[in-house]
Amino acid sequence: MLDKLFSPKSIAVIGASNRPLTIGYRIIQNLKDIGFKGPIYPVNPKDPEINGFKAYPSITAVQGNVDLAHIVVKNTMVPQIMEECGKKGVKAVIINTAGFKEIGSDGIALENQVVEIGRRQGVRICGPNCQGVMNTEESNPVYANFTYTRIKSGFISILAQSGGVGEVINQRLSELGIGIRMYASNGNAADVSIPEILQYWAGDDKTRVIILHIESLANPHEFIEVAKRITPLKPILGIKTGRTELGARAVASHTGSLMKADTAVESVFKKCGIISFNNQEDICQCAIAFAQQPIPQGRSVGIITNTGGPGIITTDECIEGGLNIAELSEETRTHLKSHLFPEATVSNPVDVLATAGPKEYAIAIESLLSDPKVDSVIINFITPFFVDCEGVAREIKRISAEAKKPLLAVVMTDKKQWAGTLEIIKSSGVPVYDLPETASKALVALTRYGEYRSSELGVRSEVMFNDVNIAETRKIISDTKKSGREFLSLGEALAVLYNYRIPSAKFVLVERLEDIPSAVNYVGFPLVLKVDAPEIIHKTEEKAVFLNITTKEALKDVIDNISKKPSRCDIGTRYLIQEYLTGGREVIIGGNYIESLGHLIMFGLGGIFVEVIKDVAFAINPLSRLEVEEMIHSIKGFKILAGVRGQKPVDMDKLVEIMLRVSQLLNDCPEIKEIDLNPIMLYPEKERCSVVDVRIRV
Amino acid sequence: MLDKLFSPKSIAVIGASNRPLTIGYRIIQNLKDIGFKGPIYPVNPKDPEINGFKAYPSITAVQGNVDLAHIVVKNTMVPQIMEECGKKGVKAVIINTAGFKEIGSDGIALENQVVEIGRRQGVRICGPNCQGVMNTEESNPVYANFTYTRIKSGFISILAQSGGVGEVINQRLSELGIGIRMYASNGNAADVSIPEILQYWAGDDKTRVIILHIESLANPHEFIEVAKRITPLKPILGIKTGRTELGARAVASHTGSLMKADTAVESVFKKCGIISFNNQEDICQCAIAFAQQPIPQGRSVGIITNTGGPGIITTDECIEGGLNIAELSEETRTHLKSHLFPEATVSNPVDVLATAGPKEYAIAIESLLSDPKVDSVIINFITPFFVDCEGVAREIKRISAEAKKPLLAVVMTDKKQWAGTLEIIKSSGVPVYDLPETASKALVALTRYGEYRSSELGVRSEVMFNDVNIAETRKIISDTKKSGREFLSLGEALAVLYNYRIPSAKFVLVERLEDIPSAVNYVGFPLVLKVDAPEIIHKTEEKAVFLNITTKEALKDVIDNISKKPSRCDIGTRYLIQEYLTGGREVIIGGNYIESLGHLIMFGLGGIFVEVIKDVAFAINPLSRLEVEEMIHSIKGFKILAGVRGQKPVDMDKLVEIMLRVSQLLNDCPEIKEIDLNPIMLYPEKERCSVVDVRIRV
Repeated sequence: MLDKLFSPKSIAVIGASNRPLTIGYRIIQNLKDIGFKGPIYPVNPKDPEINGFKAYPSITAVQGNVDLAHIVVKNTMVPQIMEECGKKGVKAVIINTAGFKEIGSDGIALENQVVEIGRRQGVRICGPNCQGVMNTEESNPVYANFTYTRIKSGFISILAQSGGVGEVINQRLSELGIGIRMYASNGNAADVSIPEILQYWAGDDKTRVIILHIESLANPHEFIEVAKRITPLKPILGIKTGRTELGARAVASHTGSLMKADTAVESVFKKCGIISFNNQEDICQCAIAFAQQPIPQGRSVGIITNTGGPGIITTDECIEGGLNIAELSEETRTHLKSHLFPEATVSNPVDVLATAGPKEYAIAIESLLSDPKVDSVIINFITPFFVDCEGVAREIKRISAEAKKPLLAVVMTDKKQWAGTLEIIKSSGVPVYDLPETASKALVALTRYGEYRSSELGVRSEVMFNDVNIAETRKIISDTKKSGREFLSLGEALAVLYNYRIPSAKFVLVERLEDIPSAVNYVGFPLVLKVDAPEIIHKTEEKAVFLNITTKEALKDVIDNISKKPSRCDIGTRYLIQEYLTGGREVIIGGNYIESLGHLIMFGLGGIFVEVIKDVAFAINPLSRLEVEEMIHSIKGFKILAGVRGQKPVDMDKLVEIMLRVSQLLNDCPEIKEIDLNPIMLYPEKERCSVVDVRIRV
Repeated sequence: MLDKLFSPKSIAVIGASNRPLTIGYRIIQNLKDIGFKGPIYPVNPKDPEINGFKAYPSITAVQGNVDLAHIVVKNTMVPQIMEECGKKGVKAVIINTAGFKEIGSDGIALENQVVEIGRRQGVRICGPNCQGVMNTEESNPVYANFTYTRIKSGFISILAQSGGVGEVINQRLSELGIGIRMYASNGNAADVSIPEILQYWAGDDKTRVIILHIESLANPHEFIEVAKRITPLKPILGIKTGRTELGARAVASHTGSLMKADTAVESVFKKCGIISFNNQEDICQCAIAFAQQPIPQGRSVGIITNTGGPGIITTDECIEGGLNIAELSEETRTHLKSHLFPEATVSNPVDVLATAGPKEYAIAIESLLSDPKVDSVIINFITPFFVDCEGVAREIKRISAEAKKPLLAVVMTDKKQWAGTLEIIKSSGVPVYDLPETASKALVALTRYGEYRSSELGVRSEVMFNDVNIAETRKIISDTKKSGREFLSLGEALAVLYNYRIPSAKFVLVERLEDIPSAVNYVGFPLVLKVDAPEIIHKTEEKAVFLNITTKEALKDVIDNISKKPSRCDIGTRYLIQEYLTGGREVIIGGNYIESLGHLIMFGLGGIFVEVIKDVAFAINPLSRLEVEEMIHSIKGFKILAGVRGQKPVDMDKLVEIMLRVSQLLNDCPEIKEIDLNPIMLYPEKERCSVVDVRIRV
């Protein structure tokens, strides 16, 4: 466990200094300022005393036990220091020093050496090239970090890959008067990893919500495994930076070309139930609500206001975020009518009027909280100078102490004049926002998390089909590789589908042009003729596909046409005669293998939709039935599958089954780098749903 | 002009009071606090002295001149007070009192009476049911408003329909330390209107940017006329509340059903170049940049940072907002390389490193400002404790004094510890943001405004076609109305298109079923047969349209089919034989008449796109060529018109012409309540582009 890192009883600072503008000075000062209770051992070969503490020439010269050593010496000195730490029995180190993996080969070797020493000596490492850790636990506060922000105790823990981003979030929370629980920025993460820290905080009762900043994931699988066990119990709010950066990625396939720079990390967040943000302000404001309020049981919000405008804004934002404006019960409305001012609005949003005082606010809040149709309450309060505002604040505090539903306040006021009022509400644990927009966003996040937690998405049942032929599929793939090809021929790809019982349009494959006419009977007219040569990838563009051939005469013309191009009659070229499907709704399923992540599966509407609107959903393989259903419902064009203009819906069960079979295929065969089933024709009738074209790269 | 309202030399407060928790007390106190320089005359029949000022029993008892009277008496007393004000020669009044138009018929009568008195006596009225005005002009400061927020002098003027929203914006700016110029919330706007105030501020040099809050517009045309003359010279930032509210609106047409609650106001903002926001925080933060910085000449931003994370976030946000990350010139990069630290990143974003001090920051900022490829600069600054941060701030201040390009700073710091650093930058006029996200949003708004101002959109050339037949069109419309019908028959609607030279698919109209076979020759096969009876509106659904009839035999079957339904052969029913167009790209043009606004014209892709994706653009009639082109380019499906998969583009000129002709038709005939041209088939060939179906409601 990471107790020695986050809750050390004694700390050495190796590279401590008496010069105030150095990190070696700053860390000791920070430990003093936060009131670290155990011994602090500055290590410095020259000074006998540092910042009032007795200093030691080396870590081994320290007499007492050392749980944690904070290392700020030159990078090349770190291995020797690590050896000494091991000898001394130090349990954990924070290596601030840069000049490791991030600078290339020399640094990588140095980092490996340091990690090796740590393993051998039983010393856990945070870093190198990192900021450090903080912990506000009253019995053992720690500030082993060179930043400057004063922190107070709270329930939000922050884990940031970039110290810069982590510190901005920390500062913002501090400025908002919100405490944090623990903080870590572990830089190169050579030893102690992000999943390990998440796991540790999962077991920390005073961490109620985790803010996580990610730039890139070293080991997505481990991350997903850990995070998805945590999120049903404790919310993780994630922020990813580098969204528009163009990372290296394959673009040979449709699926690949539709991926954005952040698709992979977004998919990871989704897979393990992390709530995703792309704005530091939003993640801070929402974290406050998670830290202080219960999770709503449903989407219906009750809104109270004492002036029109903010009530309207709250309504706009909540509806746009997918919440419902609760329809109040008859009982609630009657109660409000008889206890509020006669001109008050007793439907939702409830306008208690500018003249409303403590009594009116109390009645409104209590009525909404006790209405079974209301899941959460936002209180808007513009502080009129002629109202007993502190009285209103005291009522909010009194009621919130017993409230079982989340309560968020928006206090629009001059913060200096009404400091007392604000302080009373803040001390109640009800988050106080400046603007209705912000409170609404926080409530939307809280509600979404509640839905995630109560859904079965956390529990992913694996679906397995037993009727598939893995052996035959692997053979096709290995034959392709052996022959030095990257792409399966169309015939091979169709065989793979057959092996996984993924239905494709009826077809016959012949090796000679002259065999075509006699082969068409099985397929029937109208038909499609495709020239199947391994080097022909984009068939339509290369004029290797002939659609909608309706008669024998037309077929003959096509055959004549082909026979005139010698390149279309090479050895190894085959001809695929396929039934021509019309009138179906086209979808596309794709899969792309991402290094260290596995397959990312894409689903979207085919044809124009995917090309023009890029209306697609991604998820990380393997997929559960619920994930598949969620992907299908999440695309904008879902209505087309459900049927527009009186059309019947396509057979959704069959679509789900096809996606699950593709998922299993990719899980069984990680050698498949890319797969595009494009298009798949869907119909209301299960048995007509078929893949029309497929491309597989290995 | 409104000088007497915003810059009165003397003010009376009618209904002044000595009780501190009353509005009558508060206003006098506010005038004292802001240091109003002229005489203040409290009017109160009982007290001889109010808050240290001699009080008068009535306004007529005041000896000196009174420019402005602030009225806070009971609503029923207002008419009498107005008469007295007129007698006294008061030039303007602010009526705080509620209980007028907003309470229904009695209130409307009272308001009309008050307005009548004002007109007769030459007294301008702000309100009733309003907050009042503020002005920070040093030579004549005014705080004629009952709110509490302390304001300081600045360049942002705020005009809010809702006093609640206006006050929240005012408070937020105050909290951010940003001054305002003038403020007005004019409530019921019985006399002094929003356009009038905008016009007044347009002429006020110290108002550099206007924040405008709108709930609904009383007179959109006047508003547009005024605002569109202002925006090319002075930016107006608009916020509309009530976006998700469902207002009353016609939904018989496609166009109507695609309108959202805020489509009309959004279209008004767009028509007159108002930059639209839907978040109070964003509008405040962006206004600061408009108030303090020049407008960029282009989209290319230069980014400086001293730590990686914030640089990445700035990049993400700028790109997502449509800006370019400037590619620095070779010269700039060479210069940076030789003057920054060796490990610094000299491409954009420029990472000067955490150790960068005043010298390095100065070099980076000056280099980017002088690079012709850079239009604007964002400076990210995390304040390291080991750096001379105040020195960096002084360099920013020094450079900004001469800068011709906008410069925005993001200072991520502990505000108490680095208060001095922040103060230096703020005093330079460079806006200081907490987060890179916020600065980026502000720069995006600044850049968009620059593009608007330099485009010709402000200058709307009217396009007029002289080949149209207005008289014949008006006759068709008036005949329809005379016959008590709401909808034109299809034949009539097609005739309207013909009168406006809007091309439609070739057709023949016959009155008897038996005339059909001999009429088809003109049209030819394949054809469409439509039963044209006034009561048949949704033709497809009512089985009154028969598509793709390819042979004489098929036509005969259809005719037999129709003849069996007596209701399809009523007197007045006609039969339209139309050529059946295939292979074109479908678009839809619609128009909806909105009370007091005129026609809102819609453009979108037809068929599935409009139904499923609701991918449409709206603009207020009349349309200029540039507006039409902007509408066409703004839809997501534009690529389809431009051609996908090697398709040729449709004839855009013809599409523009059709839209302009529809615009002219609606302008000429305001009696048309709704028009749907759906679908219009477009082709690469100009002469093939034709309207297939049309519906007109009058």
